[in-house]
Amino acid sequence: MSRRGIFYGVGVGPGDPELITIKAWRIISQTEVIAFPTANGNASLARKIAGPFIPDDTIELPVVLPMSSEREAACKAYDLACPAIASHLEQGRDVTFLCEGDPFFYGSFMYLFARLARSHETVIVPGVTSLTACAAAIGRPLAARNDVLKIVPAPLSRKRLRAEINSGESIAIIKVGRHFEKIRGVLAELGLTDKALIIEKATGDDQRISALADVAPGEQPYFSTILVYKGGEDW
Amino acid sequence: MSRRGIFYGVGVGPGDPELITIKAWRIISQTEVIAFPTANGNASLARKIAGPFIPDDTIELPVVLPMSSEREAACKAYDLACPAIASHLEQGRDVTFLCEGDPFFYGSFMYLFARLARSHETVIVPGVTSLTACAAAIGRPLAARNDVLKIVPAPLSRKRLRAEINSGESIAIIKVGRHFEKIRGVLAELGLTDKALIIEKATGDDQRISALADVAPGEQPYFSTILVYKGGEDW
Repeated sequence: MSRRGIFYGVGVGPGDPELITIKAWRIISQTEVIAFPTANGNASLARKIAGPFIPDDTIELPVVLPMSSEREAACKAYDLACPAIASHLEQGRDVTFLCEGDPFFYGSFMYLFARLARSHETVIVPGVTSLTACAAAIGRPLAARNDVLKIVPAPLSRKRLRAEINSGESIAIIKVGRHFEKIRGVLAELGLTDKALIIEKATGDDQRISALADVAPGEQPYFSTILVYKGGEDW
Repeated sequence: MSRRGIFYGVGVGPGDPELITIKAWRIISQTEVIAFPTANGNASLARKIAGPFIPDDTIELPVVLPMSSEREAACKAYDLACPAIASHLEQGRDVTFLCEGDPFFYGSFMYLFARLARSHETVIVPGVTSLTACAAAIGRPLAARNDVLKIVPAPLSRKRLRAEINSGESIAIIKVGRHFEKIRGVLAELGLTDKALIIEKATGDDQRISALADVAPGEQPYFSTILVYKGGEDW
């Protein structure tokens, strides 16, 4: 029987193409098929980051993935995305799926993994997350000594967000996007507005760092993370 | 006035030298002085990871950092470590300090940063953390969808550990080392023994993945992380 392809889930880091790992670079340059997520016809950030490393003769496979949080629609989209990848693998071609940041740190790669890894050899290549890239960008550690670090997705309910943020020491709020005003409200209620920084497009050409209070009303910061530092700089 | 050197804090990733970023590689290969932590005369993991990228004519500067959690002794050691680095910077030589994983994800680099960054130009290069490397190694996402991910340092008290682990969804326990039996006890009390995996030396040649229950009594797994998955694989 002929060789079947290997499915690679490759983290390409937070934005700066230089923050890709040597392993990711090698695999991207050797793989016959490069797949990447696209949403609503937008350009793919993962594809943009990996662009400099993709050889000209690579087969490119855009995969339409939902940004929707509606579960049934999302599952259907993942089901639809798999056959094109599986077909390449079954014809013996390796397929790399490009993931912003790290494949297993939130993100949608896990849904493809769940559908393909049992039937196809799969290799995960970890990457630099936007989380540590944000800390590097603002020049402040994510967590010190024996602090508990909590990573809180912004789509959670106000009530849950309030409880999680209130009880944590070092907090990173991810997936901010259209939940920004909700988060800003919760942080204000907790008296943490002046302890929060928002980092957009960390390490990208258009990186922006702002105090939470300085973001204009109505703005929706994309690809952004909010870091909340409750303690002082007691190092 | 002559140019002063730049102080680079560079993440070298979790263990596999191929998981270093292209940016880290470039900076390591261009910097005149490479500093790295050593503890109690042990070989430096960070130095080992970066080894293949350090040119022969580089000035190497081992920095003795405490593993001790005793605060006063630790501060004194950091104070002692700085003048050698500062002296190179003041003589115009760039200095790279190699950090296992990421410079700002726990780890001791932050203490040098706190002492040197105000007086010297400093650049942080984020790296792949052992956290996402562990998830890749076991083939399971760290956190899915809107789960809160909690990172819990093992040196915390039993009481605090119990409360933090009990109230979290996805949990990563770091800095396990000599706290292993305490952690194992807490997880047993919470009925989570069979939900926990321990990963030692993730992505290194000697990586080992074990179910918590399979670790022999008295063993002290080094460079290890415990991942606790409470939920099912509901993707």
